[in-house]
Amino acid sequence: MLVKDVSIMKGGRLLRDQNIAIDGPRISGVGPGIKDESGDGEVIDGRRMLAIPGLVNSHTHLAMTLFRGYADDMELLPWLEEKIWPLEAKLTAEDVRWGTKLGCLEMIRGGITCYNDMYYFMDETARATKEMGLRAFLAEVVFDMRPDQIEGVEPFIRRWKGDGLIVPAVGPHAVYTCSEETLHRSREMAEEHDLLLHIHLSETRSEVESFAKSCGKSPVEYLDSIGFLSDRVVAAHCTWLSEKDVSIIADRGVTVAHCSISNHKLASGIAPLDRLARAGANICLGTDGASSNNSLNLFQEMKTTAIAQKCAHSRPDLFGAGEIWRMATENGYRAFRLDLGLSAGALADLALIDLRKPWFAPLTEENIVSHLVYSGHGGVETTIVDGDILMWDGVIPGEEEILDRAQEQFQDLLTR
Amino acid sequence: MLVKDVSIMKGGRLLRDQNIAIDGPRISGVGPGIKDESGDGEVIDGRRMLAIPGLVNSHTHLAMTLFRGYADDMELLPWLEEKIWPLEAKLTAEDVRWGTKLGCLEMIRGGITCYNDMYYFMDETARATKEMGLRAFLAEVVFDMRPDQIEGVEPFIRRWKGDGLIVPAVGPHAVYTCSEETLHRSREMAEEHDLLLHIHLSETRSEVESFAKSCGKSPVEYLDSIGFLSDRVVAAHCTWLSEKDVSIIADRGVTVAHCSISNHKLASGIAPLDRLARAGANICLGTDGASSNNSLNLFQEMKTTAIAQKCAHSRPDLFGAGEIWRMATENGYRAFRLDLGLSAGALADLALIDLRKPWFAPLTEENIVSHLVYSGHGGVETTIVDGDILMWDGVIPGEEEILDRAQEQFQDLLTR
Repeated sequence: MLVKDVSIMKGGRLLRDQNIAIDGPRISGVGPGIKDESGDGEVIDGRRMLAIPGLVNSHTHLAMTLFRGYADDMELLPWLEEKIWPLEAKLTAEDVRWGTKLGCLEMIRGGITCYNDMYYFMDETARATKEMGLRAFLAEVVFDMRPDQIEGVEPFIRRWKGDGLIVPAVGPHAVYTCSEETLHRSREMAEEHDLLLHIHLSETRSEVESFAKSCGKSPVEYLDSIGFLSDRVVAAHCTWLSEKDVSIIADRGVTVAHCSISNHKLASGIAPLDRLARAGANICLGTDGASSNNSLNLFQEMKTTAIAQKCAHSRPDLFGAGEIWRMATENGYRAFRLDLGLSAGALADLALIDLRKPWFAPLTEENIVSHLVYSGHGGVETTIVDGDILMWDGVIPGEEEILDRAQEQFQDLLTR
Repeated sequence: MLVKDVSIMKGGRLLRDQNIAIDGPRISGVGPGIKDESGDGEVIDGRRMLAIPGLVNSHTHLAMTLFRGYADDMELLPWLEEKIWPLEAKLTAEDVRWGTKLGCLEMIRGGITCYNDMYYFMDETARATKEMGLRAFLAEVVFDMRPDQIEGVEPFIRRWKGDGLIVPAVGPHAVYTCSEETLHRSREMAEEHDLLLHIHLSETRSEVESFAKSCGKSPVEYLDSIGFLSDRVVAAHCTWLSEKDVSIIADRGVTVAHCSISNHKLASGIAPLDRLARAGANICLGTDGASSNNSLNLFQEMKTTAIAQKCAHSRPDLFGAGEIWRMATENGYRAFRLDLGLSAGALADLALIDLRKPWFAPLTEENIVSHLVYSGHGGVETTIVDGDILMWDGVIPGEEEILDRAQEQFQDLLTR
């Protein structure tokens, strides 16, 4: 496959009239005049387009897309107790299947090619994601109150290890829902199979304060004291961190999956990205679930993260567009150990964005990253993952059926 | 013209299978089975669509769309002194023409049918806006250091008063750039011609503090003391307000044009919308210029306003979707005295949004307003203003030429 005469970014600058050759799941060459060696004869006209490497959604619960708009503008506890948990108590594998597919549609339309998820019925999420063609790191969530869950982790890993798109991970929910033993077992399984650990960490102030009261340590200090933290940990939120917490996260190589919109909408707080960045921590961006966002769009997430951090620190010069763009791309590739980017040998996970839109004008060699972060709110026309075209010119095969089935499934869940 | 089998919102709920009949610049009927009486035979298939009344962008500088992405991530003073003012010193009517048209493209694509602007070369903005077919309230900006400006206000008013789409307004820039005499003359002209007054008010902390130091009053108290404030005033920003300021704004009926994204990106602060709302002030939403946003999109503005206010007050239940939606619609109609809404007799300013997109699923009778505010990031397919179709099925006639001309004009401005 050849993406012909397309624009790309190099060192933050716009380069026009490039070709991208794709052979199987990988990029075989990028440059002006590069030829297609795959022999499949497929050519995509890139003349109006910018090619970007795929965006990484570093924290979500994709099946919850089925709950989008079901309960908003509520305090956290009534939201969970009156709305979300009663629905989740009735949840079936079929709900998870169609919620996942609906979420995949939105991510494909937003140039997200890889996501990191923790939820229930993960085999269903894995199958649905594979059918949609996206790359995913998937962990069956583990709570102590559901002892069957931890027993299911090892079999889940064995079922999916070695798959081309689905990478199993281990997902103990949080320090306040998992015992030390559960956290140890989770870490041991992750180490044994060389997998990532996905956990919620220090999301709300009250959670951190009540944990400190009962345990005498912050959640981060506690996890460090039991040897849980390493560069295989992706920690979602990290909204409430002490200076010491920040140092530990940076020193242990933990990846922070920052969820700006969810943290704002649930009024959890504004994460100290400035201190994390200064300490050298790896910061990625996540949408969280559509029940607290309510989108699965990293363009929104980039803009919100940048402007919220500037405002929180009264410093418009902090968190420039280039730094934010890396959070949605390169930092994610590092966290998830993805060989990704627009270069020969990398995985062919990319998206084409129509540059002939008013929000990309005027366009210069210098302002392309600013436009992507601050004004281009998606507008992806074509999405390719693992060398397969998932959306071409705005069309995702089967989209209408998925919209109908997700709708029916949600109605069924409500009346079940 | 008949928009047939379309969904609308009534009392925050989704109503399907409605017809909207349009006769000349006004809606002649809305309901299931309503017929077209205009005789023009034009029919728009609304089966996948939601019709919304046009959104009102209550504060912008549209010609500055030409500066989009030219200078970001800078402190306010160097940004103005090194980047924006040198460009503005070279600005011509032709720059304003193409900057305005570029901005109109983006607003048409985002369902904005009316905007409120203050800038230079306003005759050019008025002509360009009329050619694009949008409704606008336009004020030539007035600074004391440019004494010709105030002299131009009256002639500008006389040229445009009575136009079907363009409504002149009077735009003294701010209390720190306009003398008491200039403010009096502005108010008198506005009263004489029964027009709106558009002013920047209490945008940054340092501006408010230095004004208080020299004058002994806050900018709001000062404007009230000289009799400037009334329900004909649209005050942009209002970020830094005392309790007394809030009462004055509410008591005088001043409209606040809140610019959440610009205030965040320039790190100006978070406006006290909670206190303003409790006091009963009329709050609208504005994008500000694309040089500090960098979009002209009220869907982004709605979501950012809602989640930023929730987070600032640690109250996820504050500023629900319905209240935010009114800020972009009804509150704007009140401020600008627009006879607008989806009902018989109202102006035919509306937009059609494709509901068959993943971000609108699942869709119920109850969650439509949540979807518009929190997940639907535009996706407008058709925009109608004053009964004229400005965009149909995603196509705006002449868009490619405007993109090219705006690009050339910006390059010319840079090298001039």
